[in-house]
Amino acid sequence: MAESDNSNCLKGYSYAEPEIQQFVKDFSKLILEDALIPQTDPNTRVLNFKQPLDLQKFLDLEIYEEPIPREKLLELGKKVIGGSIVPGHPHFFNTMYSAIDPYSLFGAWLTEALNCNVHTYEVAPVMVTLENYIFKKISSVIGYPDGEGIFCPGSSFSNLTAIHLARFRYNSTLREKGMFTCEPMTILKSEDAHYSIEKGASFLGFGTDNVVTIKTDDRGRIIPKDLEHKIRQCKQNKCAPIMFMATCGTTVLGSYDDLEAVADICQRHNVWMHADGAWGGGVMLSDKLKHLTKGIERSDSVAWNIHKMGGAGIQCSVFVVKEKGFLERCNAYRAEYLFQPDKIYDTSYDIGDRTIQCGRKNDVLKLWLMWKGRGDKAMGARIEKAFENAAYLTEKLKLTEGFRLVLPEFQCTNISFWYIPPRLRGQNETAEWWKEVGKVAPAIKGRMMLKGSLMISYQPLSTKGLVNFFKVIVGNPVCERSDMDFIVDEIIRLAEDV
Amino acid sequence: MAESDNSNCLKGYSYAEPEIQQFVKDFSKLILEDALIPQTDPNTRVLNFKQPLDLQKFLDLEIYEEPIPREKLLELGKKVIGGSIVPGHPHFFNTMYSAIDPYSLFGAWLTEALNCNVHTYEVAPVMVTLENYIFKKISSVIGYPDGEGIFCPGSSFSNLTAIHLARFRYNSTLREKGMFTCEPMTILKSEDAHYSIEKGASFLGFGTDNVVTIKTDDRGRIIPKDLEHKIRQCKQNKCAPIMFMATCGTTVLGSYDDLEAVADICQRHNVWMHADGAWGGGVMLSDKLKHLTKGIERSDSVAWNIHKMGGAGIQCSVFVVKEKGFLERCNAYRAEYLFQPDKIYDTSYDIGDRTIQCGRKNDVLKLWLMWKGRGDKAMGARIEKAFENAAYLTEKLKLTEGFRLVLPEFQCTNISFWYIPPRLRGQNETAEWWKEVGKVAPAIKGRMMLKGSLMISYQPLSTKGLVNFFKVIVGNPVCERSDMDFIVDEIIRLAEDV
Repeated sequence: MAESDNSNCLKGYSYAEPEIQQFVKDFSKLILEDALIPQTDPNTRVLNFKQPLDLQKFLDLEIYEEPIPREKLLELGKKVIGGSIVPGHPHFFNTMYSAIDPYSLFGAWLTEALNCNVHTYEVAPVMVTLENYIFKKISSVIGYPDGEGIFCPGSSFSNLTAIHLARFRYNSTLREKGMFTCEPMTILKSEDAHYSIEKGASFLGFGTDNVVTIKTDDRGRIIPKDLEHKIRQCKQNKCAPIMFMATCGTTVLGSYDDLEAVADICQRHNVWMHADGAWGGGVMLSDKLKHLTKGIERSDSVAWNIHKMGGAGIQCSVFVVKEKGFLERCNAYRAEYLFQPDKIYDTSYDIGDRTIQCGRKNDVLKLWLMWKGRGDKAMGARIEKAFENAAYLTEKLKLTEGFRLVLPEFQCTNISFWYIPPRLRGQNETAEWWKEVGKVAPAIKGRMMLKGSLMISYQPLSTKGLVNFFKVIVGNPVCERSDMDFIVDEIIRLAEDV
Repeated sequence: MAESDNSNCLKGYSYAEPEIQQFVKDFSKLILEDALIPQTDPNTRVLNFKQPLDLQKFLDLEIYEEPIPREKLLELGKKVIGGSIVPGHPHFFNTMYSAIDPYSLFGAWLTEALNCNVHTYEVAPVMVTLENYIFKKISSVIGYPDGEGIFCPGSSFSNLTAIHLARFRYNSTLREKGMFTCEPMTILKSEDAHYSIEKGASFLGFGTDNVVTIKTDDRGRIIPKDLEHKIRQCKQNKCAPIMFMATCGTTVLGSYDDLEAVADICQRHNVWMHADGAWGGGVMLSDKLKHLTKGIERSDSVAWNIHKMGGAGIQCSVFVVKEKGFLERCNAYRAEYLFQPDKIYDTSYDIGDRTIQCGRKNDVLKLWLMWKGRGDKAMGARIEKAFENAAYLTEKLKLTEGFRLVLPEFQCTNISFWYIPPRLRGQNETAEWWKEVGKVAPAIKGRMMLKGSLMISYQPLSTKGLVNFFKVIVGNPVCERSDMDFIVDEIIRLAEDV
């Protein structure tokens, strides 16, 4: 191929160029001033809602043949910020994450600058070292004497990795033979557990029909008797029950399953016990709250999203297995181009075969720098504060006319409630009446999005026959009681004539 | 729960605090000065190798009960940088990625600051809009009239998603029923293709025994006749051949399969054609080079890692499907807590059900800002430059005593070769001789790591019976011909007495 006449296209890649150094300075400043500093100011908007077609126009999406100037790129960055939701805003209670902890941001930015892929010690020595350390630390938090783990791209992936491991323990020959000729297997989960199990069952070849759902009590916690019963039923039907997923903090009601009871049953029946602490696992960091996950050390594996309660940047999903070496036994393929045995260091540090991924984004640095910087005590205090805010809001809702809690008490830092507008108060609570109540949350949600003052999610809960209700998620450590008061006052304001 | 006495632990979370603003400024400066600027200086080291136990001590890993001061945190950041490999160094040729493009870094840092999760328009309006746009753009690059895609956590995941889709098209009822009762299915791949297919086959329930390997020619390209033959054989054996994965740029030899021939065969037999362009897909961006993927528009799906040749930050793995809506048909579960139908916008913009993940890290912003800033032409020029460097190095190796190319010509920007030290030259090339040659690359690699002057990978290639050889990956746009010269000269220097 002849030398290209591309020389003018090939500038601007080196950080040694003064213009590129200036560009890094300029965009760091822009991010700090436009995205980070304003986000914790309660007087700013949580969002500037635009309908999809309007946002498309606003963003100037089109990519052209020719480059655009760097100033224009900075302007586009401003637009991206302007069009985005602000999870770090003290009035954002919509989802389980909030702002990235500033210490974690340091780790996240450094991660991007180092641009390393975590599979071998050869190319990612620091990250491998940090991963090995952090999984020892997390194992000790869980109570595993000698656990091991990996970072997963989200907890859905962690949960389906648990299914994969349970299958391997049940019958390791399936790794080679596949599932075509084997007896059916089932996976068990509670009716309030996360839907990733159904997706995972379809993905991993079990099929959603082979997911068995366990009943929960009126607070959304597993009924152990039903688990025992369904496991026996599976065995009678010649469907091997290979795994039960217990939940530490369900997505909607924040329920913690009784892990001691679950562990007794799983042990008795030799069923892999996976604890999904994606949301509520954070309580393990607090001496005051860790009783909620009592018995978790008896599980076989744990999923935990430290980007939720823990404040690490998205994503920071850890998956921990009690039995050291099991991940690699299940997943290793020893690709010869990557895992050469004749290196100058102990190749047991080449950890890439712990996962079915190959290259893997580094998620450890942002976690380690944050945890190291804060210390254990503050990591727990952050979560205790969220629980205190949840307790305060719960009491406030009990005392304020028009609000009705879905559960008598909060269980995690999700607080679920209906708002009953004046026109619906004091009436017979017929099916028709509930139907009307179910329209209230979507209507108010629409108004809060248009006003940009507040973000709270709502949903129905079919398993309990409940119509749409609000679910406040408290997690941001910058939130104070005044922000809890704001939720109540603002809903009343928004609900006028609803 | 009583109010905690945690007040001193709960400072330092708000970007409104002047100390935290200063911290962001300090660590941005540190990253720019210590990690980014030095990386393109050829006079610095590519790595400062430390053995695992030494690195553990160096890093001061332990997390304590109490916080550490922010100055100390910055020092730790310096240590992380000091202990890390430098993929952006012009003498790093070890793996398929190099430095993150500065424009992409802007997007990556902004992504971390915005801390949003991509599943609904409600919480990620900008990212959903960008994803929809970028997959139109990428579809047009591939030649799909109306394709659709998702970002995956790495191309191994993309490849296994292709298997999942192929299975769904073959028999959509397996999503519910599972694979226990169905006739066996097989997945086909070339012997030089990536090992993610074996891992994926085990993960998805097919088993590695049901992966059928197709022979390649002496340049590592699929032999179409063997594909045809093996598909027929599968059918005769009542094993449905559901997918063939073609490769655009194999991991070791950089071979491009003949996609037109593959498409003819797959079409004839109604087999899902997946094109793994994780490594070599980047050539689609260049008018001069895109002939290498001729026929890719006839595939059913494409995997492409734009963090490799394209220079986006790790990870930026796109997976594109020709048939619009197919991803969602295969994966949707419509979790009621997330995909409420009664929102104030068109909920077809809630794209989270395209994947089996739930929350998903935003990988689009760093891609869109880079591509927008560079323009199509420069995106192609970057890749053409890498090919020009590869051509130059290949010629140089041909002319330099002691070097022997594995292939007569380079096929992609991986250049594979042996170095034959003086003591082994001019001898009979017996099995014993080759065994000796196979020890040379690991020995030189060890020396280059200890000296820190160069990073090149090596591996054997069992499928072709080849002993350890070096594989240089050229991709970094800051690399010049002088850096290619350096490879040759430095290997000769390092090989003294080897």
